[in-house]
Amino acid sequence: MQQLYRFQTAAHIVAGRNSIQALADNLHFTGIHDVKSVLIITQPSIKALGVIDDIVGQLSVKGIKADINTNVLPEPTVGNIEEVFQCIGNEHYDVLIGIGGGSVLDTTKIISVLKTNNNSIRELLGTDLVAKPGLPTILIPTTSGTGAEVTPNAIVTLPDEELKVGIVSKYLLPKVVIIDPMLTLGLPKPITAATGMDAFTHSLESYISNKANPLSDMFALESIRLISASIVEAYQNGSSADAREKMLFGSMYGGMALTCAGTAAVHALAYPLGGKFKISHGVANSMLLPHVMEFNMDAITDRLSQVAEPMGIQIRGSSKAEAAGRVVDRIVEWTKILEIPQDLRSFGVEENDVPALAVSASKVTRLLNNNPKTLTLDDMEAIYRKLLS
Amino acid sequence: MQQLYRFQTAAHIVAGRNSIQALADNLHFTGIHDVKSVLIITQPSIKALGVIDDIVGQLSVKGIKADINTNVLPEPTVGNIEEVFQCIGNEHYDVLIGIGGGSVLDTTKIISVLKTNNNSIRELLGTDLVAKPGLPTILIPTTSGTGAEVTPNAIVTLPDEELKVGIVSKYLLPKVVIIDPMLTLGLPKPITAATGMDAFTHSLESYISNKANPLSDMFALESIRLISASIVEAYQNGSSADAREKMLFGSMYGGMALTCAGTAAVHALAYPLGGKFKISHGVANSMLLPHVMEFNMDAITDRLSQVAEPMGIQIRGSSKAEAAGRVVDRIVEWTKILEIPQDLRSFGVEENDVPALAVSASKVTRLLNNNPKTLTLDDMEAIYRKLLS
Ligand SMILES: NC(=O)c1ccc[n+]([C@@H]2O[C@H](COP(=O)([O-])OP(=O)(O)OC[C@H]3O[C@@H](n4cnc5c(N)ncnc54)[C@H](O)[C@@H]3O)[C@@H](O)[C@H]2O)c1
Ligand SMILES: NC(=O)c1ccc[n+]([C@@H]2O[C@H](COP(=O)([O-])OP(=O)(O)OC[C@H]3O[C@@H](n4cnc5c(N)ncnc54)[C@H](O)[C@@H]3O)[C@@H](O)[C@H]2O)c1
Ligand SMILES: [Fe+2]
Ligand SMILES: [Fe+2]
Repeated sequence: MQQLYRFQTAAHIVAGRNSIQALADNLHFTGIHDVKSVLIITQPSIKALGVIDDIVGQLSVKGIKADINTNVLPEPTVGNIEEVFQCIGNEHYDVLIGIGGGSVLDTTKIISVLKTNNNSIRELLGTDLVAKPGLPTILIPTTSGTGAEVTPNAIVTLPDEELKVGIVSKYLLPKVVIIDPMLTLGLPKPITAATGMDAFTHSLESYISNKANPLSDMFALESIRLISASIVEAYQNGSSADAREKMLFGSMYGGMALTCAGTAAVHALAYPLGGKFKISHGVANSMLLPHVMEFNMDAITDRLSQVAEPMGIQIRGSSKAEAAGRVVDRIVEWTKILEIPQDLRSFGVEENDVPALAVSASKVTRLLNNNPKTLTLDDMEAIYRKLLS
Repeated sequence: MQQLYRFQTAAHIVAGRNSIQALADNLHFTGIHDVKSVLIITQPSIKALGVIDDIVGQLSVKGIKADINTNVLPEPTVGNIEEVFQCIGNEHYDVLIGIGGGSVLDTTKIISVLKTNNNSIRELLGTDLVAKPGLPTILIPTTSGTGAEVTPNAIVTLPDEELKVGIVSKYLLPKVVIIDPMLTLGLPKPITAATGMDAFTHSLESYISNKANPLSDMFALESIRLISASIVEAYQNGSSADAREKMLFGSMYGGMALTCAGTAAVHALAYPLGGKFKISHGVANSMLLPHVMEFNMDAITDRLSQVAEPMGIQIRGSSKAEAAGRVVDRIVEWTKILEIPQDLRSFGVEENDVPALAVSASKVTRLLNNNPKTLTLDDMEAIYRKLLS
């Protein structure tokens, strides 16, 4: 029997507290030895942190011209990204630097390949449809979160289809990643909560994915360990560098896990909630996570029981079923402590939206194929309805 | 305070039982889309396994010309590698495929950069002295072992200096790695033992290294877990695909750990034993490992105690010192079960060789700097003498 699984990641990862200060000294890891001009892609909320000025300062000491574009919108649509791309125009840059949450990182990844491929974004949607490498990128996450800094994926919103879909290509992987937990100290509480649960979902879904394997398992379990040890602390005491560091590594490892094993039904069902009702990606995932795990339970009891210990749950003397149950209980506990909304109605979802949501989710076959149990339209409707109580 | 640590690895890792059968289908991950010719670098003992014929068959179906060079010598000297390089001559190849133990992988890595840089091997010895990327390589380990398939290092023997030294360059990293445990089923018992202990040493030294960090720790601990769970079984029951798989992943993760954190005094003291007395790298490391850990003990009690549980050692109710002691005990137990030689005399080392060995080891500052305690010449002599009882 032949088995086959893969791992690929960012070419060079620089990590550590205040490692952002070493950005200019690590430019050559992009593969370009004489960088003359960069474009920094970001958002106003990141610029307000002051870090962009620091970066521009570092670069100007080296005589490198840095332009800044702060036009990225949260969970951007195809149209939003095309606007940023148009705004850049024909200006040439040696390197693109994306600094922000998943929305910024994904936008930067897509712009890098738009710059070198003669395609529209829509032509690239799907797997392995990017023909040529993009401009070299440096990705710097400021949420702990998507892990997008180490994945070959970029997610865009299709407003007409009311869905979120992905571009998957090895050419989306960055040349350099900078993992500096100090950039996340000021992340507001609701964003800490939602993005943290997104990261946890990446790892848990990777661990129970049909494509789970020894490579993805290592990343998934370490991510689960780190996030479980720090998510509540990061939420309650955002200035804890220790908790923020654990969360940022946990989220990067989550990205590595999902690159190997893929996410599954939680993400598939989350995409229409984002696409149609603008529920943020992390919130949609956290709302769905316990319910999808309960749906999967009979197929994943064994695997779920194995994450109890990494989550720090005492399971001495418990059966596998009990241990697996306590994993789901712990997730529910977290969503309460983290004050994640529990009712889809608060986002304007109504009972009669449910069939269309299920139909949209059923189209996300790339992820549904990874789920240990097949979901019928009825199954999906039932899960959405649990959030309309 | 600024912290800074780094991770880089092979661009694309393909893994799984019998994954070697997918080699030809993964050639494009070298970055070359129309591979016409490859050179397979290996050894007669690997050719005897039949796998080279399989690879040539796969390639010929795709119309790709494959030459074979089986001239790599174990733990090659600078001269040995230069001979292989000369023997290849001006022949052009799109890709180099190295399949074998660390000796083959390191030779392949060095030849790839000799092909594109106008340098002798001696000019490249050291860190970051390779100016240009080499020919793209595909590395396929057949020992579980060095982890050389994922490290930016290549080790050569300097016969005049009676020492082993390293070339360290990101350009030594391969484009593609194939991790197929089935290739290691027939690894002879003494090689299973020695190379397995080398892998374990990489992880343990990375875990106690001065440069240990959250990235290296994950790889080190997972490697320690996998190797501890399988090294005795792989030795006693070599045809166990499960044990072989754990060993091969453990050894790859060991390579990732040492890329981030570096090995330390065990490796520094092992190099002169290889350089002067031809003691194989794994044997030299296993002989030294418990003694160097005991020397380090007061500085690493805490860290050593943390690897007891991943090693599967019951430590409920033990103090940290007890747990750390039991880690060293377990290593000593293994070296007995694995029938690793314990006496340097059996390799021709004599009491009056010790001072020169210590002087040679003291030159390996790249690794000694990673050791948690400073070693004087006297300290090193004392450690060598423990193996002359
Ligand atoms: N590419 C992938 O592999 C992948 C994986 C999962 C999700 N995603 C996508 O990523 C997007 C979500 O990314 P996200 O969850 O990181 O949210 P986000 O990038 O939309 O950021 C959320 C909000 O937080 C703000 N913010 C970010 N960092 C901050 C900081 N340090 N301090 C203060 N404010 C800060 C942003 O400006 C934004 O308003 C979605 O589109 C999702 O589909 C991508
Ligand atoms: N580059 C690095 O990061 C790194 C790290 C550690 C060690 N090393 C170096 O690697 C070398 C040692 O490599 P090694 O320990 O893998 O030993 P090796 O490559 O010398 O192989 C040992 C013996 O096993 C044989 N062999 C290998 N695979 C076999 C198989 N599947 N079946 C049967 N026989 C097989 C070989 O032909 C050889 O005779 C040393 O030079 C050491 O310094 C490099
Ligand atoms: Fe996500
Ligand atoms: Fe080694």
